[in-house]
Parts: sequence; C-alpha cells; structure tokens
Amino acid sequence: MFSGAQISLYPMTDDFVGVIINALGALDPYRDRLRVETDDISTLIVGTPDLVFAAMRDLFVAAAKTGTHCVLHATISRGCPGEPDDPMCHVPELTGPLAPIDERKAKALATVASTPATGQAAAAQFSLYTLGINQHMDEIYGCIDFLKTSGVFEKSKNFCTKLRGDAAPVFATVGEAFLRFGPPEGHVTVDLTVSANSPSKI
Amino acid sequence: MFSGAQISLYPMTDDFVGVIINALGALDPYRDRLRVETDDISTLIVGTPDLVFAAMRDLFVAAAKTGTHCVLHATISRGCPGEPDDPMCHVPELTGPLAPIDERKAKALATVASTPATGQAAAAQFSLYTLGINQHMDEIYGCIDFLKTSGVFEKSKNFCTKLRGDAAPVFATVGEAFLRFGPPEGHVTVDLTVSANSPSKI
Repeated sequence: MFSGAQISLYPMTDDFVGVIINALGALDPYRDRLRVETDDISTLIVGTPDLVFAAMRDLFVAAAKTGTHCVLHATISRGCPGEPDDPMCHVPELTGPLAPIDERKAKALATVASTPATGQAAAAQFSLYTLGINQHMDEIYGCIDFLKTSGVFEKSKNFCTKLRGDAAPVFATVGEAFLRFGPPEGHVTVDLTVSANSPSKI
Repeated sequence: MFSGAQISLYPMTDDFVGVIINALGALDPYRDRLRVETDDISTLIVGTPDLVFAAMRDLFVAAAKTGTHCVLHATISRGCPGEPDDPMCHVPELTGPLAPIDERKAKALATVASTPATGQAAAAQFSLYTLGINQHMDEIYGCIDFLKTSGVFEKSKNFCTKLRGDAAPVFATVGEAFLRFGPPEGHVTVDLTVSANSPSKI
C-alpha cells in the first residue's frame, strides 16, 4: 500500500510567499513520519492517511489564521497500482476484507466526533473515487450517507459534496471517507478543496 | 450523458476579486452554450467537453495575462451515474463502442497539434480516473502514452502527470485525455491544476 497527497496552498494576497513559508512550520511535527517533496505546483506528502490528513489540516489552519482568504487543494490517493508498496503507509484499516458498510459508517462517525476543534472555520468540497471495481457507486452512496450525519455536511453539488464547519471535523470527515470507503487494498482517490476567509460566503 | 466541471480561479494578489471579475468576461462567448452556477468555492460549468475546456482555458489565460501568479483548479466529470442525461452535453465521441486505443491516441494528437497558441505559458498537473470498470489502469497507461508524445509532457509524478507549455496545447491535451480515454459512455473524471507566473518555477 502506498498513500499520500499532492497538496497546494493558495493564499490570495500579495504576500502569498510569506504566508506559505510561515505556514510550513505546521508540518514540522510530522516530518519524521512523512516523506515531503516540493515542486512549483504542489508538495507531495507520503505516509499513513491519519498523518497526511492531520498535516494538511494543520498547514491549512496555520495559513487561514492569518485572516487571508486561503485555499488548500489536495489530490489524495491510496493503493494506486502504479505506486510501490511502502511500509511507512501501512495501517490496519487498509488490510483484510471490506467490513459491512454500517460498521464502517459508525467508526467514521466516532472518529469525527472525537476530533478536538481548531477554532478555524472552513468550507470544503470533495469527490471520492473508488477505482478498479464495478458497482463503485454503492461505496459512494454509502459514503454520502455517512457525510450527511457527520455534522459538517452542507450540501450535495454536481460532482462533489460540500462541507462546512470547524476545520478539524471537516478534515476528519474527508479523512474517514478516504480511509473507510472503497476496498481496504483498493485504489481510492480524493479531489479536495478547502477554503477559509472567502469574501463571497454563500 | 452529463459533462462539466467545478472550476476555481486563485489569483495570488490582494486584488484577487478584481482579477477574477475581469477574467470572467472571457466566459461571455460561451454563456449561451454552457450552464454556469457559482458559489463560494467553485463555479459549475455544464456543456460539451470541448466547450468546457475552451472556456476554462480562456478564463485562465485572461487571469494569467495580468502577470499575477494564478492557479485554476477544476474537478471535471462525464457520465457520472448520479447525474441526469443532458442533451446540451452530447458529442459523437461519447457514444458507441470504445475504439482501438491507437486510433484514439492519433485523434487526440491531431487535435492538440491543430490548436492555435495563446502566447501564455502554463504548467499543469492532472489525474485521470476511469470509474466503474475493471482493468482501469489499461486506459490510464494508454493515456500516458499519448501524453508523452503530446509536446507538453513534463514528467510523471506520484498520483498525476505534469505538463508544461503554451496554455492552448496544455488545456487541449487534458481535454483529449478526458474525452478519449475510458469508455465513451463511462464515468470519467479529471482532477486538474493549472498554474502561471509562479515565482518558484522548478
């Protein structure tokens, strides 16, 4: 299993470089457990899903707390057949058979409910893709049921689901969707956008 | 068949609202052929893939030509089983059987080669997902072969492929990947990021 994300942070300010550089300090507590590589479009972080989502959350919150309109985008993937197995990505949830969907929903809700708030409001939208299987929409619809009871569900949109709330349950909800829907050893991806301080809140 | 994109434009400047509002004029020539709806995270555009990609390109180029570091992100989808059929999205390429992959590669290359340049340099990365089928990586690897000869291929990255060149062949290459790989009536999505004027070009 290989899991990680290509992440990008977009602060809508002339000082975007300063905001990004200051926010990068939020990744320091994770650097010994994540592989991090940067180019001019995105930063790759490789590691277990829980650490990848915690690192993204802390990076986003550090930038958003400047008050600037900031957006984080992430292309998140696990189990891509084109990537090598990597022991640093192993977690128990991603081995063994696919558990009953109600059991997975309950575990996802428990994780979201136990996540301490950050005090930073966020809006997000994301798409979950479960690849290489027939009947992929069964997993998607099961996930949408979980999202609707997550406490941060805002609405369904074409191609994606929109969330709103404290950044902690928002990132935890997307993290649980990524971890628990789709076969444990399957190829699952997420296209995630998280926004704070938008002047056009609707 | 339903096709379209959720798009967002991120100008990294204090005047991001002004840059976005000015760039939106680039969508005017398409408004009678696309459905457009906006909220605080993204703008939905619904229509045929050629128009969706042309509209995204023109919006991006209009913003990038200000010289500001700008990023456009798009979540692009066709054939999602959860979306209604819409006659405004119909194109001949998305009906009938899956043509041999060499024929599709040749058509994709011909379209990219015939696209007039915009004069705006761009870097991009994207992931193509073909859903609801087994052996989905066969289509992905066929698409990567096309990308490598597109004239704008830069490199493969974890989870995505990076392109660089004039914005016209960059958007046309992603558009052809989206249109011609994966079954014509299948569920296919793209997670696309396009960047201009980055100070950290690598």
